[in-house]
Amino acid sequence: MSHWDRDLNMVDRGAGEYDVDVSGGWNAGSRPNGGYLMALGVRAVTRVAARPDPLTVTCHFLRPAEVGPARLRVEPVRFGRTVATLQAALTQGGRERYRLIATVGDLTTSTGHTRSLRTAPDLPPPHRCAPAPATLAAGVRLPITDRVELRLVPPSVRPGQPVEAAGWFRMRDGREPDPSMLYLVVDAFTPVVFALGVGEWSPTLELTVHLRARPAPGWLRVVRRTGALTNGWFEEDAEVWDSADVLVAQARQFARLGAGAATR
Amino acid sequence: MSHWDRDLNMVDRGAGEYDVDVSGGWNAGSRPNGGYLMALGVRAVTRVAARPDPLTVTCHFLRPAEVGPARLRVEPVRFGRTVATLQAALTQGGRERYRLIATVGDLTTSTGHTRSLRTAPDLPPPHRCAPAPATLAAGVRLPITDRVELRLVPPSVRPGQPVEAAGWFRMRDGREPDPSMLYLVVDAFTPVVFALGVGEWSPTLELTVHLRARPAPGWLRVVRRTGALTNGWFEEDAEVWDSADVLVAQARQFARLGAGAATR
Repeated sequence: MSHWDRDLNMVDRGAGEYDVDVSGGWNAGSRPNGGYLMALGVRAVTRVAARPDPLTVTCHFLRPAEVGPARLRVEPVRFGRTVATLQAALTQGGRERYRLIATVGDLTTSTGHTRSLRTAPDLPPPHRCAPAPATLAAGVRLPITDRVELRLVPPSVRPGQPVEAAGWFRMRDGREPDPSMLYLVVDAFTPVVFALGVGEWSPTLELTVHLRARPAPGWLRVVRRTGALTNGWFEEDAEVWDSADVLVAQARQFARLGAGAATR
Repeated sequence: MSHWDRDLNMVDRGAGEYDVDVSGGWNAGSRPNGGYLMALGVRAVTRVAARPDPLTVTCHFLRPAEVGPARLRVEPVRFGRTVATLQAALTQGGRERYRLIATVGDLTTSTGHTRSLRTAPDLPPPHRCAPAPATLAAGVRLPITDRVELRLVPPSVRPGQPVEAAGWFRMRDGREPDPSMLYLVVDAFTPVVFALGVGEWSPTLELTVHLRARPAPGWLRVVRRTGALTNGWFEEDAEVWDSADVLVAQARQFARLGAGAATR
């Protein structure tokens, strides 16, 4: 069993409640990766909904989560014919760490128009890109880099232009991508805004991920972009493309730039 | 009192519950505009939170809402030092029509880095842009155009490129923009994907809006873009700029393309 599948394991307590053990394997410093945490909630939601595809999920991060036991509570909001909406909360020690709301469905039964409005990003091959460092500039260790192979295309920083960076993502143990992994993918790279030299850490307040297609096996490409940094608030957009040149996810987070000692 | 303020009026029933009367003045066909509906919930949330600025709000639309009485229920999720997270539901006839989750704060007390990473869109002046038609191609009346002056820059449709359109927005009765209005602004134009000639209506499943700054008085500019239409699912991004060339909101919705008879 892959690290990812083992660390998404959960025990069904009935009535939409699940016990999970938050792994330290996807940490940045002492803090679990937000995308990994979100994947846990999405897993619980898709189980309760009995529908496979998280079409759009928004997570509001309330307090930092910790490695160790946690409880997930799923509340159905509406079950429709084609989609269902549910919310979920992750709690540790009686304190809610995040709340998410999700609309789920089944992409394989969707029919409708398709138009190719974009071309996949043209990146140098992974072996010609630099591996992600295992520590941040501030000295914070990134255990996630033991599990995930990240290959970086250097950020583009031009005055008056969005700051943008791209990269490659795959699991070191060969676990192929699926929708559950895309939350980790969009949150695994250090924020592109750091390339401006104005901060060292940044708590995410909210992260929304749209699933556009189930990813094909192989490397994933991620393009990230920040277009506005205003009084410390910024957005980061991420697009994920699979090895078949299909756009598989679009994400946007709202975050706050921090400076000084990193805690995550 | 402006139409907008009158139609956001609500009666406090205590315990986070509010009675509202959904106006028919912002309709597309027989259906209230989703951004107007969302603004009602955001108004209730900021009242309960006693914080003025909805930093990031995500609304999942569960069923079409109707013109007439509705109940809003706000549930606080977490009150922190700088931000608060709350959720709200709008119910009519005992059936929940949407659920939203919001993180709110106060932009005037935010300090931190600012970097101008974008330039405001350079549009032809409003008087040189076409007014929005008062009916859709399918014959659906748009009462909202009696209240709102929309001026359109023709969509750009090029093979293999995102479909994009821009426009101007202001209230006909002179009501100046504020954060509450931005939900209406990002949802007031017909979806840009219609420019591809592949659909006539499109229910929004989810809409997320980030408030980046409080808008200055005057016309607002809106740039909208769709980059992926896959089996009928598409995203629409919207950016709103104020008369002082400041980016005031970023929005993204996840929607489903419909064809044939429009119901909204």
